[in-house]
Amino acid sequence: MPEKKYTVVFEPDNVAIDVFNEGENLLRVAIVAGVHINASCGGAGTCGKCKIKLLEGEVDSERSSKLSDEQWDEGFKLACRTNIKSDLRVEIPIESRHEKGVLTRQGAGQVDHVISQAKWGAEYENVAPEPIVAKYYVEMSPPSEDDNISDMARVGQALKRDYDIPKVTADLTILKDLSTLLRQEDWKATISVCRFKEPSRILKVEPGDTREKALILAVDVGTTTIHAKLLDAMTGKELAFSADYNAQMSMGEDVISRMVNAAKKGGLETLQKRVVKTINTVIDEVFEKAGGDRENLTHMVFGGNTTMTQLLLGLNPKYIREAPYVPVANLYTTLTASQLGVAVPDHVSAYIMPCVASYVGGDITAGVLATEIHLKQELTLFMDVGTNGEIIIGNKDWMVSASASAGPAFEGGGVKFGMRASFGAIEQVRVSPMDYEPMIMTIGQVKPKGICGSGMIDCIAELQMSGVISQNGKFNRELAEETWRVREGEGGWEYVLCRAEDTQLDEDLAITEPDIDNLMRTKASIYSACAVLLKSVGLQFSDLEKIIIAGGFGQFIDVEKAMTIGLLPEADPEIVEYGGNTSLEGCRLASLYRDKVEEAEVIGSMITNIELSTSNMYMDEYVAALFLPHTRLEEFPIRVKRLEEMHEAVAKGKLES
Amino acid sequence: MPEKKYTVVFEPDNVAIDVFNEGENLLRVAIVAGVHINASCGGAGTCGKCKIKLLEGEVDSERSSKLSDEQWDEGFKLACRTNIKSDLRVEIPIESRHEKGVLTRQGAGQVDHVISQAKWGAEYENVAPEPIVAKYYVEMSPPSEDDNISDMARVGQALKRDYDIPKVTADLTILKDLSTLLRQEDWKATISVCRFKEPSRILKVEPGDTREKALILAVDVGTTTIHAKLLDAMTGKELAFSADYNAQMSMGEDVISRMVNAAKKGGLETLQKRVVKTINTVIDEVFEKAGGDRENLTHMVFGGNTTMTQLLLGLNPKYIREAPYVPVANLYTTLTASQLGVAVPDHVSAYIMPCVASYVGGDITAGVLATEIHLKQELTLFMDVGTNGEIIIGNKDWMVSASASAGPAFEGGGVKFGMRASFGAIEQVRVSPMDYEPMIMTIGQVKPKGICGSGMIDCIAELQMSGVISQNGKFNRELAEETWRVREGEGGWEYVLCRAEDTQLDEDLAITEPDIDNLMRTKASIYSACAVLLKSVGLQFSDLEKIIIAGGFGQFIDVEKAMTIGLLPEADPEIVEYGGNTSLEGCRLASLYRDKVEEAEVIGSMITNIELSTSNMYMDEYVAALFLPHTRLEEFPIRVKRLEEMHEAVAKGKLES
Repeated sequence: MPEKKYTVVFEPDNVAIDVFNEGENLLRVAIVAGVHINASCGGAGTCGKCKIKLLEGEVDSERSSKLSDEQWDEGFKLACRTNIKSDLRVEIPIESRHEKGVLTRQGAGQVDHVISQAKWGAEYENVAPEPIVAKYYVEMSPPSEDDNISDMARVGQALKRDYDIPKVTADLTILKDLSTLLRQEDWKATISVCRFKEPSRILKVEPGDTREKALILAVDVGTTTIHAKLLDAMTGKELAFSADYNAQMSMGEDVISRMVNAAKKGGLETLQKRVVKTINTVIDEVFEKAGGDRENLTHMVFGGNTTMTQLLLGLNPKYIREAPYVPVANLYTTLTASQLGVAVPDHVSAYIMPCVASYVGGDITAGVLATEIHLKQELTLFMDVGTNGEIIIGNKDWMVSASASAGPAFEGGGVKFGMRASFGAIEQVRVSPMDYEPMIMTIGQVKPKGICGSGMIDCIAELQMSGVISQNGKFNRELAEETWRVREGEGGWEYVLCRAEDTQLDEDLAITEPDIDNLMRTKASIYSACAVLLKSVGLQFSDLEKIIIAGGFGQFIDVEKAMTIGLLPEADPEIVEYGGNTSLEGCRLASLYRDKVEEAEVIGSMITNIELSTSNMYMDEYVAALFLPHTRLEEFPIRVKRLEEMHEAVAKGKLES
Repeated sequence: MPEKKYTVVFEPDNVAIDVFNEGENLLRVAIVAGVHINASCGGAGTCGKCKIKLLEGEVDSERSSKLSDEQWDEGFKLACRTNIKSDLRVEIPIESRHEKGVLTRQGAGQVDHVISQAKWGAEYENVAPEPIVAKYYVEMSPPSEDDNISDMARVGQALKRDYDIPKVTADLTILKDLSTLLRQEDWKATISVCRFKEPSRILKVEPGDTREKALILAVDVGTTTIHAKLLDAMTGKELAFSADYNAQMSMGEDVISRMVNAAKKGGLETLQKRVVKTINTVIDEVFEKAGGDRENLTHMVFGGNTTMTQLLLGLNPKYIREAPYVPVANLYTTLTASQLGVAVPDHVSAYIMPCVASYVGGDITAGVLATEIHLKQELTLFMDVGTNGEIIIGNKDWMVSASASAGPAFEGGGVKFGMRASFGAIEQVRVSPMDYEPMIMTIGQVKPKGICGSGMIDCIAELQMSGVISQNGKFNRELAEETWRVREGEGGWEYVLCRAEDTQLDEDLAITEPDIDNLMRTKASIYSACAVLLKSVGLQFSDLEKIIIAGGFGQFIDVEKAMTIGLLPEADPEIVEYGGNTSLEGCRLASLYRDKVEEAEVIGSMITNIELSTSNMYMDEYVAALFLPHTRLEEFPIRVKRLEEMHEAVAKGKLES
């Protein structure tokens, strides 16, 4: 746990919360503290609802047209535009809050239940990169009558002498210019060597010392989105990050529909070209952001699920789709990135993260690599909730995997206003059980344009807690009489999170019943996959020592909420960690450290995959999980109790008011 | 030594000679026996001069218009058209022979002094090939729910199980069709695997069992000529052989002029294309001869000197030419033959014989491999007399090499009627010291169209022995009065071997003084290189236990004659062996056996090259060797004695006649 920096006390209810970061946003802190402040614009400062009054302490706050000069002088601020600079005491005025009694919620004040993305591989933070392709600077003595070995042998000798590289080879393209390049700076040269598989291979020769100009790309090739990081090979520093929707999206949202399209005439070629097109866009973006010359790229690492990997490589995924679900290959030799159509120079090598099975791919291998399950004794449940839901259970001695056809609900797929966790996505939601008013926060604190995975989890959990929806995910139609936010829209019943004017949209931003259905199916498929996988190895949820949740959620996942909806099993929230994009992180590590690539190949070979699609037990478990949190309520005793308490308190509060 | 088959006795002088092969040519046997029978048409049967009378025994002889029916019935035959079928007794009639007294020459009757090409690697004759690229047939069980590893892993598993191949990789081109091809014949497939460098690589996948359809090409890329053998990969059998002049010849006869041209604009590209053009022609020819589909080719092995190797690969030989003479590389990774422009399918792999130094190339490594110097204890001198003269001295423990700029005289270069050892080349020559009439034999026993290396050696030695030329290689002008064959032609003094009508030419076929000059320079450079190389390691000629002479001579090299002209040091003829095209033979072995490729790389790395071009000692030795046999006559005591005896006998014979 990080060290506490400041304490914020919210009046009039005297709720105190520890703050860990300088400049933390006050509205964000209120959300975590379980203190409700109405807020509809996601933190953009435009709705003006989240007024608070500063009683004590120092803040950095933006003036707003929503506050009069008088108010400002009296200490009123917009919570969403206020950053904390010292211990604070603030008062929530009556117009910004709802009634007392349900202010202090269960789990509130425990900031650690909102998990920020865990920092994996911290021990590597200060380790100089030693990638599979690296630049080696050598100074050679020129050939003489007594020493007229071949130019290639001279390079080999120097690499052996200075870097203990036992044997290098080079193909014709290197040999063609070798003699000239070595002599250009008087036998001082920088040699890019791929040291992954023996014998080592020279990929580039540059006159002089160019070691400082070395760049690496780590690329997560997702079904929905493609993320890339540009890294400095010398320091390991991240120079730029970018992401974009996979241009294959128009050929199907999930891997199955992509495969259906791949089977059509010309489909495979089109899919291959589209994913490469997006990769090239993302590469353009990182270079635009960071500057730099792609001539200095040494290599790239790609991680993707098995279908995405095969589509990227132009390998027909036909037998991935048909039982018994066989990929062409799980391990690939390093290849030339440009041969795939990637817009990088020909010398740039590409390493493909090893896959495990048809539905457990290189993204999961990368995820394990990033989260270091394979290095630790503790029994870990890893779930990557992307377009599919992939699950790993195990530790350093063994691992089993399974894949659940989860659907991309948490990535925004099949959700009316769903979007990935990017600028403008609602990532935190609170709904007042008293008046059903929401408190929302977006990524980037701008007007909302959609809702991402963590926002969806919050939203469903809050709607359930506040009684807006019942445990089967259906709206309480009667509430339409109590609040305009619950209404029957064009697509069925819905809850309005924001009015159009508080969004970047032309319409009200709402959560619909079909959205909730979709989400319930997704969470049910994941939970039931975990249950079956645990049973298959003779374990149960209570044996787990760690749970890692990865995927394209927002930065702020609320563990309590995830348990409330039954995405996670009921467990000590302390053992839950959020992994973020562990695939990209694994690719990053593999791109920087040769030994991580070796670990990745070991991971790929040590995971035993269990096929769920043909399992009756899985179908039964799935149906049982289509409920909030679950039809077997005994598996969620704490959540059930809290729900009851909440509903009692609300009833009491309403009675009192 | 092979077993004696028949004995032939030549009357009237009662010269007996053992014959080792059924159907041996009678004129050839006479040459070897030192029995002179006039013969001007090279064995074509057109001059009719080589009449003999069969006294006893059985022959297979062709009738000739040069013989009357009466003569034929009396037992007259043309020796050149007669093959031996039993023990024979033949009489040489007076018109076919010259006078007694010099009939029986020194060394005659010792058939082993004419060395046929040695058979190397005999222990491999019945060993099934195990090449670097081989076809492996596997039967796999189809994937099932319990066994749904990737297709690639299934292939790897089968190759490990059936052939103990530990680890295989495959690049994208293989993976693209892998799934389809494996299923085509119900999981029975033939996998071509390159097992040379770890990890092994799959180069081709074919449904069903195609092991019997596997072909290999061994190609010797000479400066002057390119030779290729098409081999059956299953049996190792040679299916076809072909050769052609290197189309680079028009860009210079030797490597230096090729390099000069390579330095010109576009020169390197043109040279590369031309050598590949010839290779493609030769490949066309072997396939035309043997039939077969080049789709069945698995791999090729190329051997050439360092310059030819670099030109084939498109690598600028600039620094080979300039002191301190540095090649780009000596060892090459296997590559794809088609990437060089060779007209074979893309799956065909190419292995390049490792080079030693700028002027000791892959042809020499192949030569050592073929002659097994690296496996034997005996101290061996190996000389490859091609366009350059390359020399190896050593044994299994050490080897040194040197290169002499010999010039291509023995390959026909710089010799007016010089040609390589092919159909119509005069390969054996005898000159009567009495009347200066020649006895010649061509390859293929057709009318001569030129003279090859072994014919040149014979010719110079015989002209010297018969006193036509003196020890400085100049014609004895006075002889012009005794025989029309010695005359002053357009290009200076010459000896006419054949009149135009007995040749395939429009003019008389003669050996000129400039031809002899050229040959003397060549033999001097080689002899002196051997001398210097021996000195450099503290040895002398008498320490040699074996001498191997390789290169494009004819099939019949007369060791005695080679010593007579001072190409070889004076040594026990028993230790001399003729290697023939050892480069091609080494390529053949390397193409068939993986362990031979490994040996070739060891050979390449164990040879220490000694640079002669900057050695004063070499220049002195060279000048001393520009004499027949040498200015230090004490190094050739036997030869000198024989020459004296011959001149005495001739003088006596002439006196008597």
